[in-house]
Amino acid sequence: MTARDPELDPLLTDLYELTMLQAYRASGMNDTAVFEMFVRALPPGRNFLLAAGLEQVVEYLLGLRFADDDLAWLASTGRFDDAFLDSLRDFRFTGDLDAMPEGTVAFADEPLLRVTAPLREAQFIESRVLNLVHLQTLVASKAARCVLAAAGKPLIDFGLRRAHGAEAGLLSARASYLAGFAGTATVAAARRFGVPVFGTMAHSFVQAHDDEAAAFADFARAQPANATLLIDTYDTARAAHKVVALARRGVPVQGVRIDSGDLGAHAREVRRILDEGGLAQARIFASGNLDEERVQALVAGGAPIDAFGVGTRMNVSADAPFLDCAYKLAEYAGKPRRKRSEGKATWPGRKQVFRRADSAGPMAGDLIALDADQAQGTPLLVPVLRAGARVDPPPALTALRERAREQMAMLPEALRALAPAPPYPVAVAPSVRTLADAVDAQARSR
Amino acid sequence: MTARDPELDPLLTDLYELTMLQAYRASGMNDTAVFEMFVRALPPGRNFLLAAGLEQVVEYLLGLRFADDDLAWLASTGRFDDAFLDSLRDFRFTGDLDAMPEGTVAFADEPLLRVTAPLREAQFIESRVLNLVHLQTLVASKAARCVLAAAGKPLIDFGLRRAHGAEAGLLSARASYLAGFAGTATVAAARRFGVPVFGTMAHSFVQAHDDEAAAFADFARAQPANATLLIDTYDTARAAHKVVALARRGVPVQGVRIDSGDLGAHAREVRRILDEGGLAQARIFASGNLDEERVQALVAGGAPIDAFGVGTRMNVSADAPFLDCAYKLAEYAGKPRRKRSEGKATWPGRKQVFRRADSAGPMAGDLIALDADQAQGTPLLVPVLRAGARVDPPPALTALRERAREQMAMLPEALRALAPAPPYPVAVAPSVRTLADAVDAQARSR
Repeated sequence: MTARDPELDPLLTDLYELTMLQAYRASGMNDTAVFEMFVRALPPGRNFLLAAGLEQVVEYLLGLRFADDDLAWLASTGRFDDAFLDSLRDFRFTGDLDAMPEGTVAFADEPLLRVTAPLREAQFIESRVLNLVHLQTLVASKAARCVLAAAGKPLIDFGLRRAHGAEAGLLSARASYLAGFAGTATVAAARRFGVPVFGTMAHSFVQAHDDEAAAFADFARAQPANATLLIDTYDTARAAHKVVALARRGVPVQGVRIDSGDLGAHAREVRRILDEGGLAQARIFASGNLDEERVQALVAGGAPIDAFGVGTRMNVSADAPFLDCAYKLAEYAGKPRRKRSEGKATWPGRKQVFRRADSAGPMAGDLIALDADQAQGTPLLVPVLRAGARVDPPPALTALRERAREQMAMLPEALRALAPAPPYPVAVAPSVRTLADAVDAQARSR
Repeated sequence: MTARDPELDPLLTDLYELTMLQAYRASGMNDTAVFEMFVRALPPGRNFLLAAGLEQVVEYLLGLRFADDDLAWLASTGRFDDAFLDSLRDFRFTGDLDAMPEGTVAFADEPLLRVTAPLREAQFIESRVLNLVHLQTLVASKAARCVLAAAGKPLIDFGLRRAHGAEAGLLSARASYLAGFAGTATVAAARRFGVPVFGTMAHSFVQAHDDEAAAFADFARAQPANATLLIDTYDTARAAHKVVALARRGVPVQGVRIDSGDLGAHAREVRRILDEGGLAQARIFASGNLDEERVQALVAGGAPIDAFGVGTRMNVSADAPFLDCAYKLAEYAGKPRRKRSEGKATWPGRKQVFRRADSAGPMAGDLIALDADQAQGTPLLVPVLRAGARVDPPPALTALRERAREQMAMLPEALRALAPAPPYPVAVAPSVRTLADAVDAQARSR
């Protein structure tokens, strides 16, 4: 492995971005381009998206540069001419970025971000911008469902081990916290993003001891403020009785975790044992193959569970592990552009999303219009970068989390349910349709 | 963001690994532990797994250490005592690792790797070892199905943009190449792992030009050896005719790519246009929402497609985006260990997997036995690290890819099909069952 951090590696891109850049340069094309990123359709099981990942895009754009060894390696491939590689030496992102703030509720076809920059810059960043916004929007949208299902009970991200690699582990901790999780088990996410970190103990800790009660006592004495004891390694109810006996002997017990079997039934039995043993204040933590449906069923069933550890199915968005997202050219050199590929046609022009309120509530419908339309409602895309520099300082993650909370509170009731709801009304403005017709007519005339 | 590369960050772990280590240290527990990683069940739609990710585990173990700023940050959390943090200063992986070589065909319950090390080392590495092996085994197993479906036609990984983050993009390129893909579009994977890199052009390149034929000509002249032209931006058949006209004018054309619509029907029409236009040597490349089922259908239908770009659905293993994998204590301080959690019980003891051949073929059945059993067949777990050092130099990725090819060629025919097959016979040896009973009896007697 090279020492280069892949997060900031300019070569973490598709080859065609570089070959296209060489071709643009050969043709002298570098006028202003406008690209927009959007999701073509909500996957089944999603009534809305929660936009996330923008801050990582900004950091990527601000840090984008080719090092000498990057250029030397590119030269060694024999695919690029020297003059082109030399031009990459000063390659920076100098354009504008407008985007929905993280934590904004979004829908299909709506631009999540809009890049306005010299063509080569706007083109080059495609692969990584998609990679970053896709992952966090995917995870935040899944995590938001878990938060709605939990009805106020705390959720902790437990999924590093089955997240898809290092960055997925880190960024899914961030995205789920943004969506309303209480925290994560991933230490590096606490350090890097300030996400609150939680942990209990593993089965191996119990197994390594010859005696389960001794394992509990050892752990509780080493972590008195953090003594959540895992009680399902052998027999959950017997272990709960052991916890009570230990507490009577003065061992500090903050709570227990149940990780297998019928979580609701176990929680009831364990709650009874703890309460009868004088541990009414001890909390019950549940984990194991949880997702929003199972959390909702446990909450609806009145299971005495105080917090949930939600892992794999949230981190990989198991029921919908990708979004059909795209980053498409909408304007170049002052002319609107669109593709008409079957099933993948795009709308031309610099666009904005306007969200209307009405007397029934703050979300009455969205309009995808031209940016110049100044339509009714709140424009959702706001300035983030101008000429390659931040418009505002980086937002605090807690502020983005608060925005997500406010946005989810504004959702029409049907969209807050886990069940599929009738689609939220998103209209395409007549101005956009007229522009598309004009672009098509001009293409036919050639 | 900190500058720390998350791939090598020792804090990319679950909090409980650190709190358990502190508790183990407080109790003076650090005897030899044996942990095994396995997958509890094959997901629906998988007849076998292809083991992958071992080399990244080895690099992680060899590089594992806490830097001063890691320790300072841990101290700042207030969760750890100074003596414990000081003990982490010299923390290294000094143990043994036995594993199935990458590219080995594997099944449920079979240990993919076995760690034998002082308890604290063997425990600490759990989260990241799972994270690394899970991702690449998941992707390689999905990619292997695509390779079988393609029946010899080349496949290229196109999925960076929707892979779950930077490392997922890099490692899914590696895992799919290992499984038999011809290469990737991800430049950083070419640099880091030597995976062959391929690329064509994006719709935006065509859109940015006022004229589609001009776009083709510009690209082909800038990339004469690499001129695969994307022909579905507006009208696929018309674009194919433009390609023919350009070739007649001397523009170099290597091939075309089709990315939307009915790929088989378009390929037939485009093949006819190219052939009639004297471009019989030009290759047709297809992409767009492909997975193993669609590739197989196109191949079976005789579509004149020379190579496939397979992205998202392979990179995220869309139909089965996670494996139910675990890393469990099998022995500590010379005593076999198991957990008996409902639905998640594990087998005790240091185990090995023996693969038997018979007259019908090289894969007649596997036996999960104790390592000491010396059962009939080929032992699949081989020594990788001894006392924290490599037994052999790092294998070449091409050698692992060749191993995967050989292993897949040995698969019984039914398992090579995409359709669900009767499970391959994997037995648990009587010695393991007897040991489990003995462990349980001893537990009951306490």
